[in-house]
Order: sequence, then structure tokens, then C-alpha cells
Amino acid sequence: MNQRLPEGVVLQPRREIRDARGSVLHMLRADAPEFSTFGEVYFSEILPGVVKAWKRHRQQTQRLIVPVGRVEFVIADDRPESPTYGLITRLTLGRPDDYNLLVIPPGLWYGWRALGETPALIANCADRPHDSAESELAAEPGALGPYTW
Amino acid sequence: MNQRLPEGVVLQPRREIRDARGSVLHMLRADAPEFSTFGEVYFSEILPGVVKAWKRHRQQTQRLIVPVGRVEFVIADDRPESPTYGLITRLTLGRPDDYNLLVIPPGLWYGWRALGETPALIANCADRPHDSAESELAAEPGALGPYTW
Repeated sequence: MNQRLPEGVVLQPRREIRDARGSVLHMLRADAPEFSTFGEVYFSEILPGVVKAWKRHRQQTQRLIVPVGRVEFVIADDRPESPTYGLITRLTLGRPDDYNLLVIPPGLWYGWRALGETPALIANCADRPHDSAESELAAEPGALGPYTW
Repeated sequence: MNQRLPEGVVLQPRREIRDARGSVLHMLRADAPEFSTFGEVYFSEILPGVVKAWKRHRQQTQRLIVPVGRVEFVIADDRPESPTYGLITRLTLGRPDDYNLLVIPPGLWYGWRALGETPALIANCADRPHDSAESELAAEPGALGPYTW
């Protein structure tokens, strides 16, 4: 968790309540500081080794967690006015040691890669419903490319 | 989906958008008819063969989906005033053919069992945050027990 984060990004541990029958895994409560509004909850499955990058939202905030597998996230800050302009942050989410909620505000480029030999699952509890008009895809993280995975 | 359901239970298909890199799996949007309020989103992992039963909520509505693995749900209606009193409904959720959202209103007994050889994951986007005071556990589904899994 000792990771320098782009301005506005939040990384917060979440509880895994272990049980011999299977864990209960917290994600987000309406009374959590990371909650604002509810837009949509959905999942992205990633097969081993696959990279999905780069994406940037203009309006939607991503609230991400990895209940299955392990995923490397990379976030690139090319917002000219940002105090962390130029920062490229790489972090891993997943059990057992990195079961953290990752909040990515709009305006940042991000991408991810599944680690390990089995499929991973990312859950996103976004603050607005999906709207393809408010996001963009690119081959590189904006002004900070090229990036080598 | 041709299953008789207890009064108040909703079963609705959700989209799996298949992609060679991994599927995107819809769950719940704020503008869906199944949405009311947002309380909490969390996950329950179930190891193969494990049964977790029985539980009943007094206030919280469960909105459940199975993005990983396959799970058998059993719902027992022992509400005296219910038009479906006495009904015990068994249904399976999971990809590829049963990727459905299951809404269980308060007052019904329910339990689940993981099918298959790998862990399953249940996601719950409940209408109220977790509160242990509003739910109860029992060895049998209320007045309708005993039940054989």
C-alpha cells in the first residue's frame, strides 16, 4: 500500500472474512467514504496474460476490486493541471494481501493485465451507468506513451 | 427460466458480452427495474460441495448473481399469507446458460450449494447495508423443513 498515487486516486483495504466454506469479501457500502452515487455494478473477466489498455473516462468514476485472481493495474496521469502530472503508477490487486478497493476518478488513463495462470475477475461499482460516449480508448496512455507492459 | 417462483422473487437474465480476452458481465444498473436503493455490494465465495443454509432477512433484499462457477439456490416460502406458501424452489445460477439476476425479498428462507469442482462466487448488491440484527440463521427452512440437499 506504500504506493505513490495520482491525485484523486484512492486505494483502501477491504475485509476478507475467511471461513473454511469460502470467504466473504467486502466491496462497498453506502456509508463508506468512497461511496458517492450508485450507477452500475458489473464484472470484467480477464484471461491469463491478457492486457486491456488504455481507457479514459470523462465523467464516470471507477471503483474496482479483484475478488478472484490477481490483476496488475497501471494508471497514467497526463492531466496538465495535476500535481502528479507525469506519474505512471503500477499496482497489483487481489487476495490475499492486496484485497483493496481502487477508485479511479475521470480524466486518468488506465489499463490492466491478468497475472497468474487462471482467469481473474474485476468488479466495478461505478458512480454512473455505462455510457460509451463518455469514455475513450487509445493504444498509448495519452501524452505519456509509449508504455511497455 | 421456466421455474415457478415464490411471490416477490424475480429472476432476470443479464448480458454476458463475450470477448476472446474475457467476458464483460452485467449485473445491475441504477435505471434497471430491479434496482431500488443501494446498500452494499459484497461477494461470497463457496468452495466445491459446500452448502450454506438457511438464512432469512427481515428487511434486506438480496440481489444475487453468479459471475464465477455455478451455484444451486433453494428458496422456501413459509410466509403464512403468501399465495405461494409451501413452495420450495430450486434453481441454478451461473454461466453460460443461467447468467441471471436473482432478487430475493425479505421474509423468505434461502440457501445455496456450489456445484462443480472449482470455487464459485456469488455477488450481492443488496438494497441496505449488512446488519446482523435483521437476519436469522436456521438448520431448516422454517416451517417447511426438513429439507434434503
